[in-house]
Amino acid sequence: MALVKINMRREITGFSNPLIKRVRSLREKKHRKREYKFIAEGLRILTEAREAGYIPEMIFLDQNQKEHPLATILCDTVESNGGDIIETNREIIAKITGKDNAQMAVGIFADIDISLNNINRNDADIWMAVQDMRDPGNLGTMMRTCDAVGGGGLFLIDDCTDPFSVETIRASMGAIFTQKIVKCSWDEFIAWKQSGPGQLIGTSLKSDNDYQAISYQTPAFVLTGNEAQGLPLDYEQCCDILVKMPMKGKADSLNAAISSAVMSYEVLNQIRKRY
Amino acid sequence: MALVKINMRREITGFSNPLIKRVRSLREKKHRKREYKFIAEGLRILTEAREAGYIPEMIFLDQNQKEHPLATILCDTVESNGGDIIETNREIIAKITGKDNAQMAVGIFADIDISLNNINRNDADIWMAVQDMRDPGNLGTMMRTCDAVGGGGLFLIDDCTDPFSVETIRASMGAIFTQKIVKCSWDEFIAWKQSGPGQLIGTSLKSDNDYQAISYQTPAFVLTGNEAQGLPLDYEQCCDILVKMPMKGKADSLNAAISSAVMSYEVLNQIRKRY
Repeated sequence: MALVKINMRREITGFSNPLIKRVRSLREKKHRKREYKFIAEGLRILTEAREAGYIPEMIFLDQNQKEHPLATILCDTVESNGGDIIETNREIIAKITGKDNAQMAVGIFADIDISLNNINRNDADIWMAVQDMRDPGNLGTMMRTCDAVGGGGLFLIDDCTDPFSVETIRASMGAIFTQKIVKCSWDEFIAWKQSGPGQLIGTSLKSDNDYQAISYQTPAFVLTGNEAQGLPLDYEQCCDILVKMPMKGKADSLNAAISSAVMSYEVLNQIRKRY
Repeated sequence: MALVKINMRREITGFSNPLIKRVRSLREKKHRKREYKFIAEGLRILTEAREAGYIPEMIFLDQNQKEHPLATILCDTVESNGGDIIETNREIIAKITGKDNAQMAVGIFADIDISLNNINRNDADIWMAVQDMRDPGNLGTMMRTCDAVGGGGLFLIDDCTDPFSVETIRASMGAIFTQKIVKCSWDEFIAWKQSGPGQLIGTSLKSDNDYQAISYQTPAFVLTGNEAQGLPLDYEQCCDILVKMPMKGKADSLNAAISSAVMSYEVLNQIRKRY
């Protein structure tokens, strides 16, 4: 006889409930790594996740909120997938996510672990690669932009901020689920990149190439370095092309997420003109 | 006989010093408004300020840091301008700015108050206008981008986050001093805009105009709405042109700072091709 798991909608409204404490601990990277789970908040992001095929193992819902059609679909999917629905209140949700202005729903997901070998570079014309990206907001925003340009995903090289932190996922606006996120070393990335077609595009202040004067090839890999240091010199030398954007003011650099967006939209605009 | 102010280099290393407490309070908007002062941190940003003609009234320096040529020039300028130099340590600087990884220098500046009447729109081809922009990081990043495209400044419309917060200034990377920042209501902005030449460019998902299919006029005013709501409908209707950027993924919008950057670089690129 097969074991049948009976799903229950449970109610939890106590701050000291052990499950709340455990889920809340997922805001810290060490606990995420130990539990192989992460938190995503908000009905919109959870719906993006569902549509991309990622169903939370557990969902916390504000029971004082009016029923929302997206929440109903989400709960049905979670339940039919064997997950748990926890009815709770806005204060508990705020405690879990650490955000005063809490969302009506929070999902707990199993880790998404994608390796270079799982990537088909021909799935998309544009990919982003980031090296030593430290700011969660920058990384999440880059995921969101990569989705917007029809990108396939992001390669997280060297010591990047955790893509599964609450702050990164919040800034990604759901793109954490639509973009393939691959953590790898520089050597692994370069070896993989050179094993197939594609152009590695680096932005560098030292380059003489105006970013609009180059005809880009696809798949294009738009590489952006650390917020403060930019790309290491030997990384720049591995790029197929180095370009720079015009800087007309006093500043000598752009924010990393801005730079990768301006560059990626240039590649997209060139692709749009070809077809 | 004229009063001669004798400047002193003072040393303060005590956390409970009243001046430290007072300066630290400038991290809060209500204290900035009461004191008509704000904080900017880091030798690089303070040098941008000096080059733009803004000299801090007071500067806090880490006395354990090796002498830096930029710090020497800065201190000379502050002293000859009648300001104060306070020698202190990294812990005090961290306490003032609320940032663990503190900079070696912090400056206290008098409020910069620019009104619409002080703006000559022909000083620059590109200006940014933001409505209800709530995130300090977004606003600071937009200042930085506006500087990069050779922009003249930013119009802060309705209920925007304080441009003089530590977080905004940090994200601006000094552009707070190179860009003219004007706070105004929508009605004031529109009346001023219509009193002279220029094109108000709004981005809207409802528009059928591809942002690359339009030939922009200068001075161009790139308008970006609130992070969550976008522009109100009646604001959109006041724009000279509404455009949209291609969105190729699941997402239906870009981060506000990204959107304004992609738009502004398009305007800049068109201007570059004209000359």
